[in-house]
Formats: sequence, structure tokens, C-alpha cells
Amino acid sequence: MRNPTIIWRGESNGYAELIDQTLLPGELRYIEIRTKEDMWDTIKRLAIRGAPAIGVAAAYGMVLGIQEFRGDGAAEFAIHVQNVAAYLGTSRPTAVNLFWALDRLKACQSEIASHSVADQVNALFDSAKLIETEDQEICSELGRIGAELVQEGDLLLTHCNAGALATSGSGTALSVMFHAKESGKQFRVFVDETRPLLQGARLTTWELMEAQIDATLICDSMAAHAMKTQGVSRVFVGADRIAANGDAANKIGTYGVAVAAKAHGVPFYVVAPQSTFDLSLACGDEIPIEERDPKEITEQFGTRTAPQGVQTWSPAFDVTPASFITGIVTEKGIISPVSREEVLRVLDP
Amino acid sequence: MRNPTIIWRGESNGYAELIDQTLLPGELRYIEIRTKEDMWDTIKRLAIRGAPAIGVAAAYGMVLGIQEFRGDGAAEFAIHVQNVAAYLGTSRPTAVNLFWALDRLKACQSEIASHSVADQVNALFDSAKLIETEDQEICSELGRIGAELVQEGDLLLTHCNAGALATSGSGTALSVMFHAKESGKQFRVFVDETRPLLQGARLTTWELMEAQIDATLICDSMAAHAMKTQGVSRVFVGADRIAANGDAANKIGTYGVAVAAKAHGVPFYVVAPQSTFDLSLACGDEIPIEERDPKEITEQFGTRTAPQGVQTWSPAFDVTPASFITGIVTEKGIISPVSREEVLRVLDP
Repeated sequence: MRNPTIIWRGESNGYAELIDQTLLPGELRYIEIRTKEDMWDTIKRLAIRGAPAIGVAAAYGMVLGIQEFRGDGAAEFAIHVQNVAAYLGTSRPTAVNLFWALDRLKACQSEIASHSVADQVNALFDSAKLIETEDQEICSELGRIGAELVQEGDLLLTHCNAGALATSGSGTALSVMFHAKESGKQFRVFVDETRPLLQGARLTTWELMEAQIDATLICDSMAAHAMKTQGVSRVFVGADRIAANGDAANKIGTYGVAVAAKAHGVPFYVVAPQSTFDLSLACGDEIPIEERDPKEITEQFGTRTAPQGVQTWSPAFDVTPASFITGIVTEKGIISPVSREEVLRVLDP
Repeated sequence: MRNPTIIWRGESNGYAELIDQTLLPGELRYIEIRTKEDMWDTIKRLAIRGAPAIGVAAAYGMVLGIQEFRGDGAAEFAIHVQNVAAYLGTSRPTAVNLFWALDRLKACQSEIASHSVADQVNALFDSAKLIETEDQEICSELGRIGAELVQEGDLLLTHCNAGALATSGSGTALSVMFHAKESGKQFRVFVDETRPLLQGARLTTWELMEAQIDATLICDSMAAHAMKTQGVSRVFVGADRIAANGDAANKIGTYGVAVAAKAHGVPFYVVAPQSTFDLSLACGDEIPIEERDPKEITEQFGTRTAPQGVQTWSPAFDVTPASFITGIVTEKGIISPVSREEVLRVLDP
């Protein structure tokens, strides 16, 4: 990867550098993150986003929080770890990878709670690094498995950014495209711009163009018309949290794409690692949906484009029911048809 | 109406004033239009837009073009009228009201071709004024008829702007809401922002707020999620051209709303005057669809938000097949079910 989304500098007393994605595609700038508060803010304002990347960022946020420990002894340290995790967990409510990563570090700490604090710090740092390297391997595996679904001559469509920028590796849905391209398949991609924050326009087109993939930017409202008139043949998207029955929360607008895909007989695939599944939730109705600041709709990157005082409604995510999903590509294989039974059979948790 | 969309000043040698809708909602500014070229440009750049308003603007554009006549005699005048109409017809290809208005003035001229040029000029001016006053009456009638469909407690949804700004009267789809409000019904409206030019965010919310109607702005990509989770009960939209079988071209994104409405069992109504029907077209596949400048997608009101050199696809309209439309509200009554037979029966052309 030319420009990793997130880089850890040094050992357990080091710091993170990550691309400020709010500046793309105009500017590629790395920012230094040296405190858990900085990491919280970076996640909150979407400078880093994408479910797997948020997981890695949260893990390194834990390491930063642990660096602040000035207390005495393992008992105090255990409480500190819990507090840092609780704090970071308030940054964004929907992406389950955030909580998955925090839980994993908390579990690691519990297992070695009798060791010295210095040993625990090192073990937690190793655990955070492992989350990152595993994410990279999983992205490759998602791409390899998903690329089998891409047919020569396909016109694909994607929504939001499920690319390298959304992970610490090659992405989820876009990893499928990168692998299909590397294997020599010819295909084109329609990219939904993804209002309000334009992750499709700003990030996905940029990644696809860097990879020499034939990408065309459209407005979200054009997807249904594209399916009707342009021969869209397959949809690939990522996910932020998937319930046990396969209902998948993803960026707002994904559900509308799924409804249109079903109406036009276009196969609709979700690409996501096992860490995106929340098997504690029976169905998607239980997934908490974050509401965003009205200004993201009313102020177009500096220009006011709606009347002062207008009411808005701005959910950051929606839930696509399993019945609209042709298959979920995971590193364990493809879940299809999408049902509770198949989720459990493929993931074998 | 507090702020008419278009005003004619003076007699047949007068000029037009119209609201520059590209400046709304930040600024309410009238611009003077004194030549047919200015009117062409004003239509092209969407300073005036909305099918019925374009019809009225084209009629007054004809009057402005006729003022330039310096030739000699009725034969030359007839050719001049044809030329002005041909010129104005190149401004926007989809809205049939444009051609309907031009054809009506050409027919008027043909009927009185033996009269003096001065008499013909006056007759054409009267004809243009009649198009305007008829449009105002038709808007009221559309509102009166359509308001019967609005139920107490409804959550309506609309796309783009089919309001007073889209006509010389009270609008089409929004006229329905204005009349329902006046009759004392309580309801709320979700307004799609309508990318790329944000007519919903800029114009529709403004009109509804002025009328004290409870309006909430959403991104286009939220409409399907709103239908699934918020109880949207009815959709009202305008149209730019309707084929003989009821297939309706309207602002890009309308078709996606219709697909989502059908999937959720939400009644979907088109509100449009008879002049929006093009009975020469058997179905919507024959409606020409205008493509817009890529910059409307890639440059968000001054800020570049997509990589340089990105490919775009930007159809200005899409076609909603009759099978997705619950009913078409016209000044002659409601066409429902929507079929060629019902179109002809209700319009009785």
C-alpha cells in the first residue's frame, strides 16, 4: 500500500499517524495522534472512518490511553484500562468493530491481570498491533474470495467508501475490486457520491483511480436510474455492524441501493470481516443508529444551501435486511443465502 | 403570492423580471430579462426552472424575440416567429411545457398570419399572458384536487421543487400541500435535498417554511430509510414530461423514490398540468433526457469535492414507469390507475 490509513510509530510508548480523510482528495496529510482524546476526536469527526479502520484506531487509542497511567499496581491499572475503553467507546455508536477491538484488549488485560503493569502494557500493545496485521490479512482474504463473484464486463456499483481508507489493509468491498483488477478482469464501477459527507466522491473515486480502475461518479439519486438504463450487474458495499440474522447496518443510502437492486434483479453483496458481526443482536432493529450534525446537510463545505432554521433528519446509517442481500463475503467464506443458520455455519464462532 | 416567480412589466414592448433561483435561499433577487438570449440563458442555467414556469418563460421569451423584428411584412414576420421558437427550444430538452408554449404561440401566429404585424404582435403578447394566467388557475385547481388525497396526520415526502417557484402560480405538488394546509389539515413533509443542484434544500424547504408547513430536510439517500422507519404515508412530486401511457420524466432521483415507495406500499402521486403530457410519445423510453455539466457533481458550490479528472454521469431526469405511479393529479381530475386508456379518458384531449 502506498499510503497506509494508519501507522504506529515506535513501541508501546509511541504514537499514531493517520491520514486526515476529511481533507481528501484535495490534500493527502498525515496527522499525529498522541493522546486518547485526540484519537476520540479523530474518530468522531470522521478523519478516520470505516468499520475495520475504526477498530484499529480504537486499539491504538487504548495504547495511548494506557501510556497516561501514573497509578500504582495492577488493580489500579485494570480500572484504568476499563475507563479508557469506556471513554473511547463513546466516540461512535454504530460500528461494532470499535467495541470488538476494545473488548479484545480488555479481555487480554483480564487474562494477564496478575502480571506486572509493564508486562501488561507490552502485551496490550502487541495485541493492538495484532489487530492491525490481522486486519490487513483479512482484507486480502475478503478480496480474494469476493473477486470470484466479479464477472468479465461487469458494471459494478458501490456506496460510500469500503476501501483501503476504511481499513488498515486493502479494504473490504474495494478489496474485491482491487483483486478482480489484478486478476485481469475488465469491469467498470459506478460510485455513489454518498451524501452528506461524500465519502464516495472524495475517497472511493480516488482509490479506484489510483488503482487504474474505470470509475464513474454519480449522485446517490442516480443509482436506481443507472440500474434501469445502464446495466448495473452487481453491487458491493461494506458494513458497520451485522446482526446474527445477517441484517447489515451500513452508511445511510445503502438500504435504498439494496431496494433498487432487488427491484432490478441486481445481486447485492456485503463484504465484511467477522469482527463486523454482532451475534448478540438477533436482528438489525437492535443496531443503534448514530444521528449526525444538521450542518452536514445544510452547509455544503462552507456554503449555506438551506434556509436558516430548517429542520433536518440525518441518520448516519441504515439497516439493509438480510432478505435484500444476495451474499455476505467474509474471510471465512461467503454467507449465501443470508440467514441466521448460514451466518453461524460459515462463521462457526 | 408574495414573490411571483416571473413578472411581465408593461405591454408587448415590455420586459420580464424573474427570481434568480440559483441565489435562493440566501438571496431573493429579481433579474431583468430584456432579450430572448437572456431568457435562453436564464432557462439553461436553471435561474428559472420547473416545467410550468419554463413554459411561461418561453412564452415571454417569444415576446422578447418578436420585439427584435425589424423586417418587412407578415411573411417575414412568420419566419421570424419560427426562428425565435426554434432558438428558445434549444435551451432545455426534457420539459415539454417549453415546446408546448412555443407551439401554442406559433399556432396563434399561423391563425392570424394575414393580419398586420402590429396586430399579430399584440395577439402573441395576449397569448403569452394567457399562458401565465391559465397556469395560475391550473395550479390552484391541481392543489384543490390533490389536497383531497392528503389525510390528517400524513407524513408526506417530495423530491426537487414542484412549488410556486416551478410555476407562475402556486405550484403543482406543493400546491397540493398549500391547499391541504389552508383547509386545516395537520401533516408533515420530508423534503429530499435533490442533488446535484439542491432544489429541495434550497427552494422547497424555503417555500414550505414560508407557508408554515412542518418541513424536514433529508438527503436523497435517506428517503428509503425514512419510508422503512418513519412512516412516510404519501409521496407527491411534479413532472417535466409525461408520455401517453403515463410514464413520467421528472428530476433525477424521482424514480428511486418511486421504487422505494412501491417496496414500502407508499402511494406515489405525480401532480402536473395537461400541458406536461406529450401524447405523441407512446412511452417514457422516448423522452429525451438532458445530461448536465459534470461540475454540478464535482464542485460543491465552489469547493472541489472529487478528484481532478474523475469521470461522471449526470442525467438531469429519470423516467418513472406508470406502474410505479398510484395516480396523476391533473386539472381535469386524477388519472388512476395510470394507463393509456385512463390518460385519454381523463384528459379528453
